[in-house]
Amino acid sequence: MSARLRFSYADLHDTIARGAQQIIASDFRFDVILAIGGGGFIPARILRTYVEKPLIAISLARYHPDQPPSETPHKLQWVEGVNHMITGKRVLLVDEVDDERTTLAYAIEELLQEAPSEIGVFVMHNKLKPKKAEFPASVKHVFVGKDIEDVWVDYPWDARDIRAHERDAAVGGPIEVDEQEARAQYRN
Amino acid sequence: MSARLRFSYADLHDTIARGAQQIIASDFRFDVILAIGGGGFIPARILRTYVEKPLIAISLARYHPDQPPSETPHKLQWVEGVNHMITGKRVLLVDEVDDERTTLAYAIEELLQEAPSEIGVFVMHNKLKPKKAEFPASVKHVFVGKDIEDVWVDYPWDARDIRAHERDAAVGGPIEVDEQEARAQYRN
Repeated sequence: MSARLRFSYADLHDTIARGAQQIIASDFRFDVILAIGGGGFIPARILRTYVEKPLIAISLARYHPDQPPSETPHKLQWVEGVNHMITGKRVLLVDEVDDERTTLAYAIEELLQEAPSEIGVFVMHNKLKPKKAEFPASVKHVFVGKDIEDVWVDYPWDARDIRAHERDAAVGGPIEVDEQEARAQYRN
Repeated sequence: MSARLRFSYADLHDTIARGAQQIIASDFRFDVILAIGGGGFIPARILRTYVEKPLIAISLARYHPDQPPSETPHKLQWVEGVNHMITGKRVLLVDEVDDERTTLAYAIEELLQEAPSEIGVFVMHNKLKPKKAEFPASVKHVFVGKDIEDVWVDYPWDARDIRAHERDAAVGGPIEVDEQEARAQYRN
């Protein structure tokens, strides 16, 4: 058995709406929303409803399909062609979860090569756990939709059976599930 | 008053799941999912749960912020840097709705410049109405999650109040709403 958190789409939409209110109330002004795909696509698109800025995307894969597994994410899609929306601009980088922080820290370090005027971060969820990487000191605006405990999260967009997912999400806390079954029911 | 269709997130997820089953059952094999942002971000990300292919994005805006309104969409983000995933490859282009077909037809015509081996299309919704543009003859695989009547659609990701949206969606058909109120409640 394994403990899992399952959030409904509406819960996550609400979490992002609350995050957006923090962003709006802050002194962080930005020019563009940059989603880190695949995980950041949905949070970034929902966020755009509340903060109306142009939305563009990069896409990072955990592994290169033709190379041995590595700690460094593979850039499936990077910023070629949209550099002018990053260089000298203030960018709000969006991802679904800050887990060990390695992907986010990697993305920020690489984006700093493009000389943005500032990078801010919005994560829908932040897992309360030790991080394996830190944000560079130049990152002064980090917005978190919700802090969550350090358990496995099944997101609705990864569910093969969304009705079953939404029923489980209604419990409102971690549930104990059969691990093998969960792996078959979710893409993650 | 104005007639509006409001779909819940779970309804749309189911619609995309059914579309995915059509794609899998077809003879269309493809190498990459290409989301047309902003609208296609969420459908494409959900689709990826069922068809596990790399996911990349382009982003089209209806208007260029610095230019007068035009019928031609503005390329906020295009395929620079990911051309190698398109040229000679089979691409599944994803958008939320085929309305007048102008955006889709524009995207396809422009993508054909990259010499893909084939372009297929998946739209979550197809509005049953006369189209202002046609797909090029080379597009032989068009998948539709659901045909819908020609009324205004409010998508959940555009809702400022997702709980109110999900309650309205539970009606299961068009609802009559005050137009000004609807405009304040949705981003579209």
